[in-house]
Amino acid sequence: MTQIYNFSAGPAVLPKEVLQQAAAEMLDWHGSGMSVMEMSHRGKEFMSIAAEAEADLRELLAIPANYKVLFLQGGAHAQFSMIPLNLLRNKKAADYIDTGIWSQKAIAEARKYCEVNVAASSADHNYTYAPEQSAWKLDPDAAYVHYTSNETIGGVEIFWTPETGDVPLVCDMSSHILSRPIDVSRYGLIYAGAQKNIGPAGLTIVIVREDLIGETLPGTPTMLDYKIHADNDSMYNTPPTYGIYIAGLVFKWLKANGGLAAMEQLNIRKAAMLYDYIASSSLYVSPIAPDNRSRMNVPFTLRNTALDAEFLKQAQQRGLLQLKGHKLVGGMRASIYNAMPIEGVQALVSFMQEFERAQG
Amino acid sequence: MTQIYNFSAGPAVLPKEVLQQAAAEMLDWHGSGMSVMEMSHRGKEFMSIAAEAEADLRELLAIPANYKVLFLQGGAHAQFSMIPLNLLRNKKAADYIDTGIWSQKAIAEARKYCEVNVAASSADHNYTYAPEQSAWKLDPDAAYVHYTSNETIGGVEIFWTPETGDVPLVCDMSSHILSRPIDVSRYGLIYAGAQKNIGPAGLTIVIVREDLIGETLPGTPTMLDYKIHADNDSMYNTPPTYGIYIAGLVFKWLKANGGLAAMEQLNIRKAAMLYDYIASSSLYVSPIAPDNRSRMNVPFTLRNTALDAEFLKQAQQRGLLQLKGHKLVGGMRASIYNAMPIEGVQALVSFMQEFERAQG
Repeated sequence: MTQIYNFSAGPAVLPKEVLQQAAAEMLDWHGSGMSVMEMSHRGKEFMSIAAEAEADLRELLAIPANYKVLFLQGGAHAQFSMIPLNLLRNKKAADYIDTGIWSQKAIAEARKYCEVNVAASSADHNYTYAPEQSAWKLDPDAAYVHYTSNETIGGVEIFWTPETGDVPLVCDMSSHILSRPIDVSRYGLIYAGAQKNIGPAGLTIVIVREDLIGETLPGTPTMLDYKIHADNDSMYNTPPTYGIYIAGLVFKWLKANGGLAAMEQLNIRKAAMLYDYIASSSLYVSPIAPDNRSRMNVPFTLRNTALDAEFLKQAQQRGLLQLKGHKLVGGMRASIYNAMPIEGVQALVSFMQEFERAQG
Repeated sequence: MTQIYNFSAGPAVLPKEVLQQAAAEMLDWHGSGMSVMEMSHRGKEFMSIAAEAEADLRELLAIPANYKVLFLQGGAHAQFSMIPLNLLRNKKAADYIDTGIWSQKAIAEARKYCEVNVAASSADHNYTYAPEQSAWKLDPDAAYVHYTSNETIGGVEIFWTPETGDVPLVCDMSSHILSRPIDVSRYGLIYAGAQKNIGPAGLTIVIVREDLIGETLPGTPTMLDYKIHADNDSMYNTPPTYGIYIAGLVFKWLKANGGLAAMEQLNIRKAAMLYDYIASSSLYVSPIAPDNRSRMNVPFTLRNTALDAEFLKQAQQRGLLQLKGHKLVGGMRASIYNAMPIEGVQALVSFMQEFERAQG
């Protein structure tokens, strides 16, 4: 088997132990004679898998009892419409913070359903930082405040929790959820596509304070009504069962490895290793403001962009994969989620040093 | 490993060869060093997997070039709203055929968006048959005609293709797609949740004539717009990559086993084995009209319903699993999709015979 390190932004690397267990159980889960993929979602085997996944996620994130945990489909894109459809609740406007491409996608979709107040934006510096709370012009009558706590493409992360008073705080945590502890009670709704830190693509996790749901805009498709899914324990329709199973294995792996506090320490070390080297280098540049450098997605550029292609070619030859930056920002991007071992970051830094030396 | 036969209605049994290959490739797909679950959906490895899956599906179903094949999320339930949102196209009404629980779900959701003309219904005989075409009161001005060609819960299958003139024909084929050849050119849109004959739950296949899409009702969420997905080759957002991979393996398995014509012959034999025995028995009863007996989902009852629990208990002890009928219809149901080997049906019939003999 080729030893590679996969720096893809998502779908992304998964813990090797999880994949090994999935392979071993593929034809016969716990002596049932069935693959998890073959199980009725209403059978006792899968019901136990789903219940355990939810319980473990609740434990990892210390989710309060008045929050529902939903296992849905459609990714963050489906949430971009579900949020206004469900959370406007007779209000006409919502506040959105614009920190890059993913917040802009959320804003564009929300504009179909309400007036969007862009309460703060980092457009003035090409989305290389996140506006501080003091710069957020919040509307006390807004239905909710939406922000993107980690911009996967831009590599901008917000490490503090905004204060929004009685206005529910809604957060797209797709690309850093489970990378560090968070205080769920400060949020009205948290959502995350699974394909970065949770499991396979096709599963979306929503954590929502239960008093916020139950009132939708007229014409809301039933499948986009949080209350329907909450009242049916995410089994209103057939859920993405295999994705929930893999997510459950990832949750067990996180618990076995010290939970989110331990994960945060490791992620701090991994990110520092990469950013510190970049700061010391005369070839590589981090375009992001120091306080907002994402621990999950590390974009960097080469001072001589003519070398980009050669850098990527040599990296690929060493088994350092998927380092090309998103087409909208260019350069390189190393995504170093929970499942990226520290050895992967070390291998990347070693290669970057060697490549820099070779340029003389 | 326990030898069982899994008669679940969905998620359901998958070909053993497919699961074996998935297990073998779990940590390293074709020497890439990556699991398919870990691959960027925009990388060349996964792009090749998706393209091959689509090409194989097109070949199996002989899908004409003017039809788009979409790999979506949300199951049939999401289609229940997507269909009116996309296909009404300035019309105010659509025709629906009511053959049971699944058509009723489609009707209920469509009523949010248009006037529904129930053009035919088998409610008069408790949904134990499908109305013949001559009984369909179609409206020539309808936006489309919707029917459910196999009612998974009721076990009613329609083996002929309705004639609707210029009005597009829309069909929920979730529970019999790929079980027999169909003439796609007769349809405007075909949809199917994957979790019966295609692959894991969380993937939905839509086959749509391309001239029908591009016009949606105001306020349609972007994720529910077929045109968006068609224009982006189902990569507008991150698709359920692992489900597409497994579906692709199932398509290869179907091709290696003679395609849909061979599958149909096998399915006819499997269903006949079960229905013929039931007809000859004095204990078991098929409630369904002979012309509409589903080859995929075979509901049956015991004349003495007091024996139901004992029947299910003994079946379970023999490794004959998931035979309990849906709570809405009671009795038993054996789902015998493509991947159910004929040995499974033989084992079921043997047990049924033995159980009948034991009752004296």
